[in-house]
Amino acid sequence: MSNQGTNLDPWYDSYADRTAGLSASEVRALFAVASRPEVVSLAGGMPYVSALPPELVSGSIERVLSKNAAMALQYGSGQGTPAIREHIMQIMAMEGIRGSADDVVVTTGSQQALDLVTRLFINPGDVVLAESPSYVGALGVFRAYQADVQHVVMDDEGLVPEALRESIANLTAQGKRIKFLYTIPNFHNPAGVTLSWARRLEILEICRSAGILVLEDNPYGLIYFDKPAPQAMRSVDDEGVIYLGSFSKTLAPGFRVGWALAPHAIREKLILANESATLAPNSFGQFVITEYLDQADWRGQIDVFRGLYAERRDAMLSALGEHLPSLSWTKPNGGFFVWLSLPEELDSKAMLPRAVKELVAYTPGTAFFADGGGAHHIRLSFCYPQPEMIKVGVGRLANVINGELDLLRTFSGARLGKVAASRPSITTPPPNID
Amino acid sequence: MSNQGTNLDPWYDSYADRTAGLSASEVRALFAVASRPEVVSLAGGMPYVSALPPELVSGSIERVLSKNAAMALQYGSGQGTPAIREHIMQIMAMEGIRGSADDVVVTTGSQQALDLVTRLFINPGDVVLAESPSYVGALGVFRAYQADVQHVVMDDEGLVPEALRESIANLTAQGKRIKFLYTIPNFHNPAGVTLSWARRLEILEICRSAGILVLEDNPYGLIYFDKPAPQAMRSVDDEGVIYLGSFSKTLAPGFRVGWALAPHAIREKLILANESATLAPNSFGQFVITEYLDQADWRGQIDVFRGLYAERRDAMLSALGEHLPSLSWTKPNGGFFVWLSLPEELDSKAMLPRAVKELVAYTPGTAFFADGGGAHHIRLSFCYPQPEMIKVGVGRLANVINGELDLLRTFSGARLGKVAASRPSITTPPPNID
Repeated sequence: MSNQGTNLDPWYDSYADRTAGLSASEVRALFAVASRPEVVSLAGGMPYVSALPPELVSGSIERVLSKNAAMALQYGSGQGTPAIREHIMQIMAMEGIRGSADDVVVTTGSQQALDLVTRLFINPGDVVLAESPSYVGALGVFRAYQADVQHVVMDDEGLVPEALRESIANLTAQGKRIKFLYTIPNFHNPAGVTLSWARRLEILEICRSAGILVLEDNPYGLIYFDKPAPQAMRSVDDEGVIYLGSFSKTLAPGFRVGWALAPHAIREKLILANESATLAPNSFGQFVITEYLDQADWRGQIDVFRGLYAERRDAMLSALGEHLPSLSWTKPNGGFFVWLSLPEELDSKAMLPRAVKELVAYTPGTAFFADGGGAHHIRLSFCYPQPEMIKVGVGRLANVINGELDLLRTFSGARLGKVAASRPSITTPPPNID
Repeated sequence: MSNQGTNLDPWYDSYADRTAGLSASEVRALFAVASRPEVVSLAGGMPYVSALPPELVSGSIERVLSKNAAMALQYGSGQGTPAIREHIMQIMAMEGIRGSADDVVVTTGSQQALDLVTRLFINPGDVVLAESPSYVGALGVFRAYQADVQHVVMDDEGLVPEALRESIANLTAQGKRIKFLYTIPNFHNPAGVTLSWARRLEILEICRSAGILVLEDNPYGLIYFDKPAPQAMRSVDDEGVIYLGSFSKTLAPGFRVGWALAPHAIREKLILANESATLAPNSFGQFVITEYLDQADWRGQIDVFRGLYAERRDAMLSALGEHLPSLSWTKPNGGFFVWLSLPEELDSKAMLPRAVKELVAYTPGTAFFADGGGAHHIRLSFCYPQPEMIKVGVGRLANVINGELDLLRTFSGARLGKVAASRPSITTPPPNID
């Protein structure tokens, strides 16, 4: 070893090429900041599990231990238990999905399903299409498998089909191999928008004719506020869509139980990849969730969550209207997030230390781009803080933004103001559709 | 898609190259067989969790839910909770390991730690050195990352240092890049042998001077029978060893909680890989195990497991002596497995259907080789069946083996018999050391 590596890491020369793609996400660095109690964190995506009565869970656990302790404590199958997979089919039926529990693969959170699907399909350099912006945790997975992530613009109705078509044509002309489209159609993280039904059909058709798999990530679908989201893309395409679901938002993330519903041909490979990665998802969590779904009023509990998050969404939107009337932001009908557009003179990442000093945290838009975009955007989460704290937080954020603008005005003399208010796209290049 | 794929799988042409390495393990196919109640399964590696009093676990869970429900149900850190990492340091201290809880990374079973370490270090074609035979689940991971697995012979004292030295020299001369040595020093799976202390030091020195990392996998270390195993390799080498541990055998596998203790420089990358793979290990399992380790007599419970498995080991060894006196097998001082050598005329994989017909199951030796070896060997597990059923199972196995030998004698007329009894190595090429 003496002739290898560095003083800091003797194994420096031994890492695989893919390891260069691992880097701490901006979200991760914020965890430490956000945990200080005096900071109002609009940064994280943690569900408000305190709204889940512990007795609902403890009752389920007692029954598991009295009926099934030996199985719940044992290794399970790499596909997940048959009982939880049947329940998962019922849950997905609420979004129009029909199919067989035999095609469900239970994973260690839907994050692991993302990891396994990427592992199955991506050679270094293969293209993944993703919305612009996209989920930071998915971008991390794609980077870790050395994918070439290409963003496709969205507007208030979600991913723009015409932009998708152009992107596929351009990339194909460059000789690139596009493996899948990663999309979060409902209550997008971080954009907060929902893909319209007409576009779902159009996008499925575009991908089908181009031979591109669709990876439909739907952690928030049942957390809708005013009206349900359109049916899942998987509800009308069994062969071209891998659907990802999770109990993290409808129950609790601490069990790390999510799932993939895959085309039958792919599902067998997913099971093998799952076994290779962890042998099996944790039995105990699966048994507890199964018992909970059997016995507790889980639909009522989802309604509790929906009401709670709707109230917080309202608090955030009204605070934004009050404190930052010259800016623009998305109006989510579900989920956890609002996407705020800043005047283009501001850099959300550079501004963050000042925000933390003012005791408010957010996630800079750059976290949600593989290509360095997003500097003029902010993701605001309304899932975790109480409504009154959301208002306090947005007020502090407005002070930070206005302070930065004042500073810029003082030094540049430039005319600044409602720059971002009328932009048609929620990100950068204006699409054809408003 | 019409011009791609096959009728069976429209995505056939879309998979990554590494996906070709995914195949159902022989152990997996056996799960279905082994679960039929009339079959005595000496095949699986499931711990006997029924020996864990459910009240020990339920008491821990009650305390978690009354004290820490919101945290136990929430996302956690990608490194694992500080509390469980401190406990893990105390557990490892029983095997001579000193270090910092800051260098522990909690994973979804130690299987996931294997996956993550391989992900960090292996480019396609890189060499992993592994014992001959080696753990089937590790071989699956290495194959999934397109490693070139090279086996190194063992004898009754474990991996043979001289053979390791030769293998490194040969591979290096061929221009191959050796990334790590994967070893199970204690109560080897499947071989049942334990690496002597002198060899541990010698192997560490060989690897150190060759710049090869050591991956020390130790799920069975605390499940010793007659006397404790030698101290961990990690106890004398902080920089060159990644140590893997697990609660699956000392408590229960159903929580899927294992860990890696890594050199400080590597540990940060492991955390990032863990976050990318699953965001975080399951909080609920970590909180329950922490409470269990705080409150329950976990050392006493390990003694219970040790006594139980020792009795089963005794039952198996005495049944082998009674029913198959002409064969040879290893005499494990801990863990779950005995490695049985068959007469070379027999093929353990080909013989399996006959065994299942006779209502006994085992794992063919071929499962534990990346290179097609192991046909004349069998792994027998004594962990799960009751002692009297172990005796019944070995009796049935003897009938199968003797029946196959009779058949061969009838058709070939060859002299067969104590062929395997005096071989110095537990696998194929005879090493210098007996």
